[in-house]
Amino acid sequence: MKHKFIAVSRQFGSGGRTVGKEVAERLGIPCYDQELIEMLAQKSGFSEAYIKENSEDAVYTNLLSSIFSDRVYDTPITQDVLWEAQRKVILELAEKGPCVIVGRCADYILKENPECLRVYIHADAQKRAERIVQVYGEREDSPTKRIADKDKRRKAYYQKYTGEKWGDAENFHITLDSGELGIETCVDILKQLY
Amino acid sequence: MKHKFIAVSRQFGSGGRTVGKEVAERLGIPCYDQELIEMLAQKSGFSEAYIKENSEDAVYTNLLSSIFSDRVYDTPITQDVLWEAQRKVILELAEKGPCVIVGRCADYILKENPECLRVYIHADAQKRAERIVQVYGEREDSPTKRIADKDKRRKAYYQKYTGEKWGDAENFHITLDSGELGIETCVDILKQLY
Repeated sequence: MKHKFIAVSRQFGSGGRTVGKEVAERLGIPCYDQELIEMLAQKSGFSEAYIKENSEDAVYTNLLSSIFSDRVYDTPITQDVLWEAQRKVILELAEKGPCVIVGRCADYILKENPECLRVYIHADAQKRAERIVQVYGEREDSPTKRIADKDKRRKAYYQKYTGEKWGDAENFHITLDSGELGIETCVDILKQLY
Repeated sequence: MKHKFIAVSRQFGSGGRTVGKEVAERLGIPCYDQELIEMLAQKSGFSEAYIKENSEDAVYTNLLSSIFSDRVYDTPITQDVLWEAQRKVILELAEKGPCVIVGRCADYILKENPECLRVYIHADAQKRAERIVQVYGEREDSPTKRIADKDKRRKAYYQKYTGEKWGDAENFHITLDSGELGIETCVDILKQLY
């Protein structure tokens, strides 16, 4: 077993979270996704709600709001504190034992760890639009707009903290188009590679 | 069998050509790589030697030489003629029956074909440097320089003719790091996906 950890980065609506969870279940190892928020809260002292608002979504929002406002709340400094806590939590998880980690730039944070398999799950915009309506239901904004917004935010966040281009194949050991290949096939391949 | 064609794009030194050939062999279908040059010669009227010099490598060279010279040879127009011939040859191959096509932007040319599995093979610079010395031998230029040159040229060519970013995960159904996963594993996965 060369790989003990799987870091799954994913486009919003690609089903990457489901892929991560199913792979973990089939391998009998824990999957950290929302659980990371709780750990981050303990590590940083911020509330879970505050963390949810001030992680990846905030980089882009702050970029915009900094142009128009003098607010001192939600400053980039808060995000930097959260990033540092996130980095520590993920490095500590990698000390504990085999697991799957979804999102939170774990692919980048565990880049130097030779036991980490770095994965990116994506799909075309139409397939993702169908999926988010199915999973999260209808919202006021169209699914296409919700996807475009999330893409922009994740890209800005990833770029700010890793210095790398979001979605660049070279940053991953494997990238999979879940829309074309299907979620079950993605799970099969990753299980096999582990 | 959903996929009848596999288009393999690859970084220089990643072993992508070997992956393509082995997949084709194991599937019992033809693999087009150097054979495409011959077909292109028939289609375009140019000699094979001329085609080799004036395909992907030429875009970057011309970019530089156009700044310093007034030569009318090897103009972008020649490349455009070759690109058009290449496009036709690849589309015709896809009419004939199942196959693997290595390089030549086949991933882009067959993008709208739902039976084409689009693949990108890459590896880190060090692994590629080791491989090119092993496969092509030592040259005057260091392997690192040879890789950097080829990367620049392929990138410029791909960008010019497809308008897409070279190595972007979203352009492929699957991308694989052959340095991390090993060539045999890449072959296994692609055979399985076919």
